[in-house]
Amino acid sequence: MATPTPSHPTTERLTVMGAGLVGSLLSLYLAHRGHAVEVFERRGDPRRAGFQEGRSINLALSDRGWKALGGVGVANDIRQVGIPMSGRVMHDVHGNLTRQPYGHDGQAIYSVNRGHLNRRLLDLAEAQTGVTLHFGQQCTGIDLKTKELHLRDTATQQEHHEPYTRLFGTDGAFSAVRSALQRTDRFDYSQDFLDYGYKELTIAAGPGGAWQLEKNALHIWPRGQYLMIALPNLDGSFNATLFFPFEGPESFAALQTPADVTAFFDRVFPDAVPLMPALTEEFFAHPTGSLLTVKCFPWKHGDDVLLLGDAAHAIVPFYGQGMNAGFEDCTVLNALFDQHGDSAWDVIFAEFQAQRKPNNDAMADLALYNFVEMRDRVADPKFLLQKKIEAKISAQFPGQWVPLYSQVTFSDTPYAEAWAAGQRQDAIMARLMPHIQAEADYDQPEVQALVQQEMAARH
Amino acid sequence: MATPTPSHPTTERLTVMGAGLVGSLLSLYLAHRGHAVEVFERRGDPRRAGFQEGRSINLALSDRGWKALGGVGVANDIRQVGIPMSGRVMHDVHGNLTRQPYGHDGQAIYSVNRGHLNRRLLDLAEAQTGVTLHFGQQCTGIDLKTKELHLRDTATQQEHHEPYTRLFGTDGAFSAVRSALQRTDRFDYSQDFLDYGYKELTIAAGPGGAWQLEKNALHIWPRGQYLMIALPNLDGSFNATLFFPFEGPESFAALQTPADVTAFFDRVFPDAVPLMPALTEEFFAHPTGSLLTVKCFPWKHGDDVLLLGDAAHAIVPFYGQGMNAGFEDCTVLNALFDQHGDSAWDVIFAEFQAQRKPNNDAMADLALYNFVEMRDRVADPKFLLQKKIEAKISAQFPGQWVPLYSQVTFSDTPYAEAWAAGQRQDAIMARLMPHIQAEADYDQPEVQALVQQEMAARH
Repeated sequence: MATPTPSHPTTERLTVMGAGLVGSLLSLYLAHRGHAVEVFERRGDPRRAGFQEGRSINLALSDRGWKALGGVGVANDIRQVGIPMSGRVMHDVHGNLTRQPYGHDGQAIYSVNRGHLNRRLLDLAEAQTGVTLHFGQQCTGIDLKTKELHLRDTATQQEHHEPYTRLFGTDGAFSAVRSALQRTDRFDYSQDFLDYGYKELTIAAGPGGAWQLEKNALHIWPRGQYLMIALPNLDGSFNATLFFPFEGPESFAALQTPADVTAFFDRVFPDAVPLMPALTEEFFAHPTGSLLTVKCFPWKHGDDVLLLGDAAHAIVPFYGQGMNAGFEDCTVLNALFDQHGDSAWDVIFAEFQAQRKPNNDAMADLALYNFVEMRDRVADPKFLLQKKIEAKISAQFPGQWVPLYSQVTFSDTPYAEAWAAGQRQDAIMARLMPHIQAEADYDQPEVQALVQQEMAARH
Repeated sequence: MATPTPSHPTTERLTVMGAGLVGSLLSLYLAHRGHAVEVFERRGDPRRAGFQEGRSINLALSDRGWKALGGVGVANDIRQVGIPMSGRVMHDVHGNLTRQPYGHDGQAIYSVNRGHLNRRLLDLAEAQTGVTLHFGQQCTGIDLKTKELHLRDTATQQEHHEPYTRLFGTDGAFSAVRSALQRTDRFDYSQDFLDYGYKELTIAAGPGGAWQLEKNALHIWPRGQYLMIALPNLDGSFNATLFFPFEGPESFAALQTPADVTAFFDRVFPDAVPLMPALTEEFFAHPTGSLLTVKCFPWKHGDDVLLLGDAAHAIVPFYGQGMNAGFEDCTVLNALFDQHGDSAWDVIFAEFQAQRKPNNDAMADLALYNFVEMRDRVADPKFLLQKKIEAKISAQFPGQWVPLYSQVTFSDTPYAEAWAAGQRQDAIMARLMPHIQAEADYDQPEVQALVQQEMAARH
């Protein structure tokens, strides 16, 4: 029998490898439960001067992320430095704009700065009784039998071994903890790269820190086989990201000189170019990132190692759910502690992976699916009409029809359920849309009859 | 322009990591081309006393394997110690036998002993000018930038670094060379385990070294969700292998005591039990192996590292093609040297992976597909009738219809082409078989008309 959380829970010294977004939030959760938490991080302390950011600068926080932050009382703190984005603004090759709301009034995703969020979570973790942070500690291996973490101090290059009783691997898409598990028998693993890379660029602030594009939106330049997006920053600038093939006639390989870059951007992103004064310098100075999906199973080794976040399930960024999915891991793990008690490690680890694996697999597929939506379909008037009709159905049948994007972004419906419901709704839309040429057609009696019939058939 | 092989080819000092079946054959091929070849192998020399075999004992050599052995002149030598198996013999739960030929008269696959084959190839490699073998050399890492292989001498535990100019990774399903490539950017990789394991057991020789089952056959005990097979040895014994779920009501987990094992075997393999005097001892003494598919890409790093064999494409054993596919890698690589000349490394490595990747991917799928055929379909009279009808079509339309098994096993048609042709033929059989209840029906005019119509429609 599972026992409820005792008022004085059994506490242990726990070990977290990786102090990125998920690792620092997880440490807060574990410390809130009364555990002592030793956190090791390969990189230096991002709160120290001279720290180099290694990863994408902006992230989109949505409901699952907020819920996880709220669980340790830090959501309000973060919300103050986030910029709500209530919809997409599409830019065509002539600079014409089309707007598509993400949800209903008052719903938004939030542009937040990764570095700020990570530093804030580290501040909170460090201030929390029980959490000890160790930076510059590279995991070079794990002895799963003797339960020792092999670490190299990056300052002194000294190797040392840290014993663990429970080890949480939150060390990201290239996880060293997962590498150790990969060498155990019957560990399924895949890493799949897209043939696309990404390049981060800057849309500059206007005079006086003014935003030169609509502030409260995620901007998209959909171009069929590739796209650029931009998310707002507090200082008036936007972080733009070009997602672009590595090879081919229009590709990173084809843009070799500043003249190549200027000619290409002038042709396909003409409205953005005047806002990007450092375009060519940044294009050649910034690295070209790669885009990776990681799946693996199991996520646990016995009852003493557990993978969470990107270490267990790295996804491509096109649904804005990578961080949110990792944060939701913390919410789910915490709920399992509540349900089974703080010492039922074997049950909790087994339940955690059984619950989260199908959901994060579904999210991985959704993220790939949304790449096609963002780069191609959002430029299609038929697609935008379908979104409007879907919003009308959703308003007419409250609670009975939630668009897929809203289920993923503005709910905590398990991802696999959201995906399945979205596919059922897509099938209905495929039957309805041939009868609808314009928004007003929705109110035609024959269309209304079809809608009623489809909605009745769902139950 | 590609240049033909010069009469005095440009030779290099080449490095091969892994002296198993593919590594030792590859070394022979490379040395035949005039290169100096340094071969490193983690394990000890299998020709020395006291060597412990680590892997499955018997393998089925078929046409692709023979062709590759023939290319360095060792096929006849090996054929003398192989036992031809011209068909499958199925054993039902009552001990009734059903026979299914693999191909036409004179076609057979050959049961060979892995250890013998490996030792013979090593003898030939060692006798070959230019080949140097180094055993007990574990690869602990590779510096791809400085082109150094990091090795640990397993006798002295001393680490040493060996520079390489071209490194061939033939170090198997758990390849250390591939591990180094896996950490490079944009390297796709997957390892997938079946929920089944395998256990090797012995069917004893009879008095005077007599075979107690039909000698020239591969024996199968198909049982729906699992199966046992047996391959003949020269000494009159057979090596049996049980492929069985790890977990569940009928599984390795469910057989915990000698009494469990005896009761299970008595019930499902009653005709085999009297021939397996060491059953319970072997069952608990022998390890339970796992079954793995590995896919990855690219197989090359620049023009200085290339993966071949299981290191590039490990598959499950149910089509008997793992070794044959690895040997065919050597045939294909050698043909590319002939075509492009011995110094066109970049072209040869790129062509090699472009040719072999789709074919070995197809073979991986075929091997999984054949698991269902072997454990389930071969026990179905309808399936066996279909095979007989297929043989009749093949005889009636020589060269126009080659059964899938024959294309894979008795030809060197690229695996992907064989698989595609097999799927087209399967679709035809699915249309024909509802009209055929017995072998004789094939000659009915209406069936003959349908067959003629299908064959005409193929072109």
